[in-house]
Amino acid sequence: MKRIPKHIGIIPDGNRRWAKENGLKKEQGYTYGLEPGIKLLRSAREQGIQELTYYGFTVDNCKRPKEQVLAFSQACVKAVELMKQENVEIFVCGNTQSSCFPSELLPYTKRKQQLTEDILRVNLLVHYSWEWDMKNAWASREIPRVDLMIRWGGMCRYSGFLPLQSVYSDFYVVKELWPDYQETQFLDALAWYQKQDVTLGG
Amino acid sequence: MKRIPKHIGIIPDGNRRWAKENGLKKEQGYTYGLEPGIKLLRSAREQGIQELTYYGFTVDNCKRPKEQVLAFSQACVKAVELMKQENVEIFVCGNTQSSCFPSELLPYTKRKQQLTEDILRVNLLVHYSWEWDMKNAWASREIPRVDLMIRWGGMCRYSGFLPLQSVYSDFYVVKELWPDYQETQFLDALAWYQKQDVTLGG
Repeated sequence: MKRIPKHIGIIPDGNRRWAKENGLKKEQGYTYGLEPGIKLLRSAREQGIQELTYYGFTVDNCKRPKEQVLAFSQACVKAVELMKQENVEIFVCGNTQSSCFPSELLPYTKRKQQLTEDILRVNLLVHYSWEWDMKNAWASREIPRVDLMIRWGGMCRYSGFLPLQSVYSDFYVVKELWPDYQETQFLDALAWYQKQDVTLGG
Repeated sequence: MKRIPKHIGIIPDGNRRWAKENGLKKEQGYTYGLEPGIKLLRSAREQGIQELTYYGFTVDNCKRPKEQVLAFSQACVKAVELMKQENVEIFVCGNTQSSCFPSELLPYTKRKQQLTEDILRVNLLVHYSWEWDMKNAWASREIPRVDLMIRWGGMCRYSGFLPLQSVYSDFYVVKELWPDYQETQFLDALAWYQKQDVTLGG
């Protein structure tokens, strides 16, 4: 492909709906979203993507029933464990000043400045909120502009994902729920991105 | 309809492409976007929408060839003249500290706080930029959250439109170019919005 997005944002939505459809409790869906995340990461690396940012969970998400909060927090911790086995640079971004922030992820909250060129950067938004980001003078500012957003689960909305990095992103919707991830969905998004014209307002 | 968005953002894109397709110079397209704007406004009022925000032009847009800059500036001035003949409250939001801001629109840059209940509010972003908005401590903050974004011209991106008001908006794309506006496109967007589920992260 000719026009490769440097940085892709991923909204892995639909875990709870998937769980319900598969006769599970809502909170059981998140575990089934782990393998898709690693598959996508490997596919992105193969395609020459430089950076990925996954939407983990938000401050508002923590208002949900506590078994769900526990389940998605644990899924984020597990996701980072799995990513560590890949050759990637991990950065976790979010409000660490709360018991809702999983302490296991504190070691990943500093972003490395100098990197080997060919290493994929993977960011995970954990206990993130756009209000927190703005109140703290754009706390996430080390994360660069997002070129392409891909959201699974059929919705066409950002839900507070890095608003200032996303001002010029192209948004692609995958109808399927995140645990039903297939590589073709990701490749279709990249193919669609080829056809978008980048002007940045000029 | 049951679920009516309170506030709709409109990105009237495709004027230049439309002009080219119709054998005109690019800058001649903007004039053909005026009538659609008034038609949409009337339709929104009929549907019980409380507020509309149109993307006029941005600071970055002013880097374009000067005949285009002149054409879209004049189209914004003309749009406000036409809107004045409707029973609406007009607010123009943007960086007034530049010769690119049309002086004819300065009288509209204060937002009325107290309003009669049934009056439609219409905002126009003129010489707006998200960087300007952020550097000025969210200069546009009087404009409320956008529930539904509708963009004509096929692209699925915000292009810097009110990033903090748009964090939870549902985004609807109309493939047709803005001068080819038809009321059915707007009504289809409203019908689509009915089916979207608002959670605000909860």
